Amino acid sequence: MEKRRLPDTPFWVEPESVGPEHLKLSLEESHHLLHVHRAKPGTPFQATDGAGGFFECVLETIERRAAVGRILERRENAGELPRGLEVLVGMPDRRALEQIVTHAVSLGASALDFVACERSERGSLGPQQLARLQRIARAALKQSRRSRLPALGSSRSVASAAKAPGAAGERYFADPDGQPFAAVPPRNPQAPTRLAVGPPGGFTEGERRALLDEGFAPIYLGPSRLTTETAALALLALARNSL
Amino acid sequence: MEKRRLPDTPFWVEPESVGPEHLKLSLEESHHLLHVHRAKPGTPFQATDGAGGFFECVLETIERRAAVGRILERRENAGELPRGLEVLVGMPDRRALEQIVTHAVSLGASALDFVACERSERGSLGPQQLARLQRIARAALKQSRRSRLPALGSSRSVASAAKAPGAAGERYFADPDGQPFAAVPPRNPQAPTRLAVGPPGGFTEGERRALLDEGFAPIYLGPSRLTTETAALALLALARNSL
Repeated sequence: MEKRRLPDTPFWVEPESVGPEHLKLSLEESHHLLHVHRAKPGTPFQATDGAGGFFECVLETIERRAAVGRILERRENAGELPRGLEVLVGMPDRRALEQIVTHAVSLGASALDFVACERSERGSLGPQQLARLQRIARAALKQSRRSRLPALGSSRSVASAAKAPGAAGERYFADPDGQPFAAVPPRNPQAPTRLAVGPPGGFTEGERRALLDEGFAPIYLGPSRLTTETAALALLALARNSL
Repeated sequence: MEKRRLPDTPFWVEPESVGPEHLKLSLEESHHLLHVHRAKPGTPFQATDGAGGFFECVLETIERRAAVGRILERRENAGELPRGLEVLVGMPDRRALEQIVTHAVSLGASALDFVACERSERGSLGPQQLARLQRIARAALKQSRRSRLPALGSSRSVASAAKAPGAAGERYFADPDGQPFAAVPPRNPQAPTRLAVGPPGGFTEGERRALLDEGFAPIYLGPSRLTTETAALALLALARNSL
């Protein structure tokens, strides 16, 4: 019997390429399935559309080098937390950006906003930089077997980022003068939890005030100094565990 | 008045270079203080010896290019958690190793053991690899303003790593079939908490059994699949918050 390594990571499929019984992978994803994994008609594989759909498939045909799978099962919101986790991150350097996207997507973030803070050394991100982070987020989504791609954005100030539309859920920000994290029953089970961590150098007093005014509770993350990326992941891990 | 950027990160000092009233930096650290920060006699700086000593100093003299500081204050265990946090990490790839050391040191790990697991693609680390990780750990210690350098090691199996000498504290390992983390009052406040996360591909059933036999409780980290590095940081963040 021919030995093949079955893919253990789902493939990306655009939501518009998903029909009621079949889905079609992009040429890039098809190449990976057909040539790296040497799939043949009958080979099982999984796909995620980033919009909440996670599909158990079997390769049916190949149409002009595009893999067409028959959908055996559709699981809505596979790998997703019961509630949203939105994270405001004070703008760090480029390497930290990528690390934060990778880890935060795995940890279940539903939205990431990289905020140009007063102490940030760079302004908000442009469309090209966000597109690059989108690609990293998509790779992390597949790797972590989630089904819903987080929204990525970049606000110009903490004051504008902190004001959220819609119902208010729990809100926390990393702060040396805060209290250790303690889970509380949600005020509103539909509302996402929002988290905020400062840029390198921390929030200014004015930014801190803006967060407190919007109901963000200060959370003490421990006696050592954390980088923006470590603080973001620590706060996400705590919030994730409480959902 | 001359404008200088005061160092906001402590300098490394070898424990044997610390006297009752003075300490002497290595030539490399001295170069950084004297030339990058352009310190002059009278400039304040901080130093950490990695053995629990954290020093508020003022530059007194320069002896053969080595900076000699007068110790104004010695703070024992500055930046340290009240209890130890020892982490067994299933051997990941090289890039993940460095990320784990950086984040885990910031998050207060007191010991890190990179364990060659049955599903790891490489064996235990040799002295050169550990020395490289030591340098990364030292940089992270300074960055995070801790004072006690974690012990780094590399065991040959989960069974040998899981057996710890000394008093038993809380023990947890990341496991898809576990329960969410919930802090418990320590059985023995002197004993370190021990954590374990699997290598890429996870622990085998035999390794899982070895951890259960040593009293490690399985902890569920959420519905998405985490890499070894993300799982290690998430579990550390939870344990850190509970101390």
